[in-house]
Amino acid sequence: MDRVVIIGLGLIGGSLGLALKGAKIKDIEVIGVDVERDAVVAAQRKGAVDRVERPAEKAVASANMVIVATPILAVRDVFATIGDALPAGCVVTDTASTKAHIMRWAEEFLPPHVHFVGGHPMAGKERPGIQGAEASLFRDAAYCIVPSARASQAAVETVVGLAQTVGSTPYFVDAEEHDMMVAGVSHLPLVLASALVAVTTRSPSWREMSKLASSGFRDTSRLASTDIALSTGIAGTNQAGLIRWIDGCIEVLKEYRDLIAQDSKAMQARFDEAWEARERWLVNQKEPPRDKAMAEVPSTADRINEMLFGNLWEKLRRREQQLLDRDGKGRQEREQDR
Amino acid sequence: MDRVVIIGLGLIGGSLGLALKGAKIKDIEVIGVDVERDAVVAAQRKGAVDRVERPAEKAVASANMVIVATPILAVRDVFATIGDALPAGCVVTDTASTKAHIMRWAEEFLPPHVHFVGGHPMAGKERPGIQGAEASLFRDAAYCIVPSARASQAAVETVVGLAQTVGSTPYFVDAEEHDMMVAGVSHLPLVLASALVAVTTRSPSWREMSKLASSGFRDTSRLASTDIALSTGIAGTNQAGLIRWIDGCIEVLKEYRDLIAQDSKAMQARFDEAWEARERWLVNQKEPPRDKAMAEVPSTADRINEMLFGNLWEKLRRREQQLLDRDGKGRQEREQDR
Repeated sequence: MDRVVIIGLGLIGGSLGLALKGAKIKDIEVIGVDVERDAVVAAQRKGAVDRVERPAEKAVASANMVIVATPILAVRDVFATIGDALPAGCVVTDTASTKAHIMRWAEEFLPPHVHFVGGHPMAGKERPGIQGAEASLFRDAAYCIVPSARASQAAVETVVGLAQTVGSTPYFVDAEEHDMMVAGVSHLPLVLASALVAVTTRSPSWREMSKLASSGFRDTSRLASTDIALSTGIAGTNQAGLIRWIDGCIEVLKEYRDLIAQDSKAMQARFDEAWEARERWLVNQKEPPRDKAMAEVPSTADRINEMLFGNLWEKLRRREQQLLDRDGKGRQEREQDR
Repeated sequence: MDRVVIIGLGLIGGSLGLALKGAKIKDIEVIGVDVERDAVVAAQRKGAVDRVERPAEKAVASANMVIVATPILAVRDVFATIGDALPAGCVVTDTASTKAHIMRWAEEFLPPHVHFVGGHPMAGKERPGIQGAEASLFRDAAYCIVPSARASQAAVETVVGLAQTVGSTPYFVDAEEHDMMVAGVSHLPLVLASALVAVTTRSPSWREMSKLASSGFRDTSRLASTDIALSTGIAGTNQAGLIRWIDGCIEVLKEYRDLIAQDSKAMQARFDEAWEARERWLVNQKEPPRDKAMAEVPSTADRINEMLFGNLWEKLRRREQQLLDRDGKGRQEREQDR
């Protein structure tokens, strides 16, 4: 029986649990951990986990895979807490929205005998919590995979298998590059939505204006309702990315402002460009990805499940055993060092 | 038989036609006018109009009410074209997203014997055209009503009746105030969506970034897909409003940028404020409006239909006749002047 431990039973952790259990993989057990009793009860009620356990150190002690799905700023503490309890060969991944800090924390707090592979499924909802969790949340989404220097090929493929099992497309990327890219497509939208709400609601006219705000305002401001733990975590761990894109956006807004003041024809060309660029994006979204990074993996669920959650873990375990045998009593010595 | 003529069978004109016909008002005929044959055919096929007629001058000649639902920048030409053909006492309204220019064009091109009442239903979709038209488009939306100085009380109430018949809540507002308010809640979101698309898609990283763009990017950028005729019309007729709100938004973005660079805790307070402000707006959206401007009108569809599309037009016609009788042969003289 392979044990997958999910730490943090919120929207992402809960949805991963539902998707994993929905995939009906043979001989795996999904174990949930959360500090909040409500989340634990709801996860069990929804069937997102086979059982719950606490504390985290105990739950991970015999885990094959640990998925840390807590808020970003809590990941550091979770790594520090579980580090010493993780068994040799365990594959550890996370789901946080930024990756550079996470990779540093993994390096700092996780023992060398585990395989850390950073992860970031590009899916979500503005409402946090297990209540909104659903097995289909990750379907057709990109799933960023950021292997640590020490992660084995087999561990990386296990996380690729996780991504594919939940219906996502694995996307390999470097941590710094990830943070700069998601700052543009994911964190800048959050900042713009919040700025739109701030500038309008701070106005003395807001009381009247609010009655005229309609679906355009609702959609453009939607991300301002992002869970505060998430937005704060992003601001705290992706400063460089946010600043680069906010500055870029201010430049575009200044350009638009000057064009509108001078000549509405010139502004028409800008609206046209944005219109066309978004159309192209929407069209590409619908087409199957034809990309090396996205194409190196098997495509049917059966193959994935068998290969990555069956044979692969077997292979992984054998390889770990070889390494342990070669290293002598590495693990035992480490435990005595505690 | 009362004749309602809709000029411009796009999303808004088509949806008004469907909503009016869906209300099953006795003894009215909805006549559609559009320069594009496809729109005319589609409007008839969808049942958005009872019949179509052309040209516009001919269609309006015996109209009780004319609704101009063309793109903003075409309204001036429509007014110039139909002005001389409008019968005395006709109620003329529009659906354009800005009102100050419209009111000036009405003053300039419409004859003194018609009643112009500006209108702006706060509803729409980013895709233009009769294809997306639906009777429910205006349900629960605010419907801005901007009476011209010369419009009679009865004419204003007729447009109030139109707004209520299609399911909207009438909202009385001055043209300049309207333009400044919608610039914040409707036109700034359009500009922010376009700026988001511009800054990201102009980046050399876009090819890779685009694969990570997800639902947050999609929703925040949705308005960048606004019909170009609409966005250009807004930029051309609401410069002061757009500049005021773009400048305000740039200030907020600079504030956010500096906070993120300095201290993520301070930024947390800003995310919190925006989160709470949006929650309050969402809650208020769900509550029934308790406002003088919104409460002065009858509430059941039957009363509205009877009063505003039956008795009211009768009253309006009688009043017009009195005025015409008093003015002598005003209308006939005007026609000879052409």
